Amino acid sequence: MSHLLKEHIGAISPLSDEEFDYILSHFVFKKLKKHAFLVQEGNSVKYEYFVLKGCLKAYMTDSNTGKEFIYQFGVEDWWITDREAFFKQSTATINIDCLEDSEVLGITLENREKLVTEMRKYEHFVAVKANLGYISLQKRLQLMIMGSVKERYENFIQQYPHLINRIPKSLIASYLGVSRETLSRLYRS
Amino acid sequence: MSHLLKEHIGAISPLSDEEFDYILSHFVFKKLKKHAFLVQEGNSVKYEYFVLKGCLKAYMTDSNTGKEFIYQFGVEDWWITDREAFFKQSTATINIDCLEDSEVLGITLENREKLVTEMRKYEHFVAVKANLGYISLQKRLQLMIMGSVKERYENFIQQYPHLINRIPKSLIASYLGVSRETLSRLYRS
Repeated sequence: MSHLLKEHIGAISPLSDEEFDYILSHFVFKKLKKHAFLVQEGNSVKYEYFVLKGCLKAYMTDSNTGKEFIYQFGVEDWWITDREAFFKQSTATINIDCLEDSEVLGITLENREKLVTEMRKYEHFVAVKANLGYISLQKRLQLMIMGSVKERYENFIQQYPHLINRIPKSLIASYLGVSRETLSRLYRS
Repeated sequence: MSHLLKEHIGAISPLSDEEFDYILSHFVFKKLKKHAFLVQEGNSVKYEYFVLKGCLKAYMTDSNTGKEFIYQFGVEDWWITDREAFFKQSTATINIDCLEDSEVLGITLENREKLVTEMRKYEHFVAVKANLGYISLQKRLQLMIMGSVKERYENFIQQYPHLINRIPKSLIASYLGVSRETLSRLYRS
């Protein structure tokens, strides 16, 4: 499965087999059952994860209402973690759990910094990814604040066509910040 | 004024005078009057800007209601642009204008990529900045969605104590996504 990571990095920084094997030696493999937690609020966040298989959701819980808000999904070829907690080595403010049985590769901050220092190609890769991530988050903030429900939904379909039939509608509604009923009306239209 | 940029980059990647002069030669200097536009919706975005002096606001306008939402402020030592348009070389979806007379240094995407390729130190700098930017945007999204008005306001004071008396309250309210009246009640309490 790890070839997924090679192709993923290679799309930005092409790698020889030796270079990739060296990178891979800094990751640990984890297998998780559906419903298992990858990150739990209040705990430390040792790893940043690359998803090899499965589907996960990152979410925050409103301490007053208990309501969940889905912050991010993670499927094959995506990275997922509590980024702030990971980089600041603080405790998680979000939860991440598995919607399906999942397999991930995790890298510690120490190993990430080691690779970035040792390999220019890895530094280039993380710089490009951080930038793309920033842009897509900016888009998400913009849509959450200014976009109509319809715009948010259409943007989701356009960005993630492969997720529409894989993730329960109630969770997509939570990601879009709308009620299940509002989303149903859009699905039917 | 350009020493501000040297200190800014140097805090992440220490630079010799020669290295900094070389970097600076890739920037253009711009002086803008209060109310002038730095970026205008629908136009191309040629530069990413580092603010040397003054104060700017980046905002989106709701096409239906005409309501403005302030996306970001920019003061000394901050970067500002329409990031998506700049990196994808598409047209701006936001406006940026000056709240005070301002001075900025602008770099084109071409020059940015040249520096990143030529200087490992510059690549390291932009990688670290993108990552910090991503984390702070994630925090902002989280607060906009889950935070109470009070939490958003307190977080703003904590993050930007120097902006509280520099920026009109109505604009801070727009940034926090609350009405001017709601914010006034918090100010008094």
